Amino acid sequence: MTHVRIVEVGPRDGLQNEPASIPTEAKVAFVDLLSEAAFEEIEVTAFVSPKWVPQLADAEEVLARIRRREGVRYTALVPNEQGLERALRARVDGIAVFTAASETFNRKNINASIAESIERFAPVVPRARAEGLRIRGYVSTAFWCPYEGKIEPRAVTEVVRRLVDLDVDEISIGDTIGKAVPVEVDDLLDVLLDAVTQDRLAMHFHDTYGTGVANALAAYDRGITTFDSSAGGVGGCPYAPGAAGNVATEDLAWALERSGAKTGIDLDRVRAASDHLAAVLGRPLRSRVREALRPAPKDTPAPDAR
Amino acid sequence: MTHVRIVEVGPRDGLQNEPASIPTEAKVAFVDLLSEAAFEEIEVTAFVSPKWVPQLADAEEVLARIRRREGVRYTALVPNEQGLERALRARVDGIAVFTAASETFNRKNINASIAESIERFAPVVPRARAEGLRIRGYVSTAFWCPYEGKIEPRAVTEVVRRLVDLDVDEISIGDTIGKAVPVEVDDLLDVLLDAVTQDRLAMHFHDTYGTGVANALAAYDRGITTFDSSAGGVGGCPYAPGAAGNVATEDLAWALERSGAKTGIDLDRVRAASDHLAAVLGRPLRSRVREALRPAPKDTPAPDAR
Repeated sequence: MTHVRIVEVGPRDGLQNEPASIPTEAKVAFVDLLSEAAFEEIEVTAFVSPKWVPQLADAEEVLARIRRREGVRYTALVPNEQGLERALRARVDGIAVFTAASETFNRKNINASIAESIERFAPVVPRARAEGLRIRGYVSTAFWCPYEGKIEPRAVTEVVRRLVDLDVDEISIGDTIGKAVPVEVDDLLDVLLDAVTQDRLAMHFHDTYGTGVANALAAYDRGITTFDSSAGGVGGCPYAPGAAGNVATEDLAWALERSGAKTGIDLDRVRAASDHLAAVLGRPLRSRVREALRPAPKDTPAPDAR
Repeated sequence: MTHVRIVEVGPRDGLQNEPASIPTEAKVAFVDLLSEAAFEEIEVTAFVSPKWVPQLADAEEVLARIRRREGVRYTALVPNEQGLERALRARVDGIAVFTAASETFNRKNINASIAESIERFAPVVPRARAEGLRIRGYVSTAFWCPYEGKIEPRAVTEVVRRLVDLDVDEISIGDTIGKAVPVEVDDLLDVLLDAVTQDRLAMHFHDTYGTGVANALAAYDRGITTFDSSAGGVGGCPYAPGAAGNVATEDLAWALERSGAKTGIDLDRVRAASDHLAAVLGRPLRSRVREALRPAPKDTPAPDAR
């Protein structure tokens, strides 16, 4: 049995692009339900400008109101020192800084080159370290960029090396648009594992085209034991075609457990968290396991949305 | 570029458990749209008793009315000699006989032991061969059985050997309840490829828990180049939780093409066939690629069906 750690990112990555404002209370209830599912780590929110991500403007309040469970690490995304100060006041257990492997994506996303984005958060790392926080670095568009197309493994590795030099604890490699396939996961890891050991990597797959589980299992085969996912596969923008959510926690955990891994999470309780979220969002969530395990619907199925 | 053949089984495996009767005209239109997508093989219907599968009682009429396209093989499932005679009169290009790797499933499904089911269709094979038909043999519940649990690779291999002895052209290995994961695909192929070569095998995955694409890619890695799927992932019973459809043709073809395979099918035309089917069935279909490529919905998304 290999222990696999699933980092639940639904409250942050899952909700950040949700167009309708979600009540703080509903977010708090979502995180509390996730805590009961025994994740080791939950990314709760982001301390970014509310102008960028209005959905997460209530970061402080969410972190103040959740019931913190022993053994769960509650983290938040921070872009810079101001973000870190807010995060520290909100008593996070860890932070995540972020950049991309694609220059164009980084510029369009946060209006900075990759080098500039790293400069911005570089001072955050020693300060967070001194405060005893766990530090994660995200590298998004590590496979494909919506503007540049295929991103070469060498480009990803270069960014990863800079994060290693900054001494972050863990680096999460993101397939932001969900276009990767397992052969590309293998190709990237072939190069990447020369720069960093498996235990320091997390893989962050989106399930846009249905390859999220396949990619995670391919990475697991290569010794990766940390994966990001969101309950019910929430994420992306429901009104933008092609912008799908993270691989669903239910689907990821099911496939990993069936493949010999031990995640330690309680799938029934994840499903309860997804139930809550589906009710809040008022739309079906994207998880095959959720569909398979749900009771038969009483009503006529909904018409095709096309 | 490896050529991969996708056998479209939507009209048969996809529709057979659909509770509401689908008009023959709608089925004919579905098959005609699939023909335009340039599949090499379409399993159109089944010549089984209408008492078993009322949905496919119009097998003759469907085969009489479809527009046959050059280069497409139109096939049907046949359980015995009476079925074969009906299929021959309907001018099929190929037939499929079927059994299971689980004794209990076979008994519950067709009220016969595995040996008895093979005895029933054994005389069909030389007769179909003499008529110049292509012959496929299905082995269902090749990974998991809803009654017996895990099915051992040796049990599957034993059944496959009997089909090889009968001289069927191709054997389709079915994960009927969609519970397999890639390690199990590998484990089965480790044993199975001692009994039969890759070019004689097809893999038939259902996507109940979201591992259909992962399983197909695992089999492709092992040299398998024929896969079954259904447009839009139609199949199973929409009112029975846990009985999900085949892996969606769109998702399978997308993942295989992105992994270096050439399927020869026209994905846009598959999507058109799925559009038609979604309208006929009046419910969303289960394909991630379909969701990713569809235009943004104009209306409010449908509420969660739970």
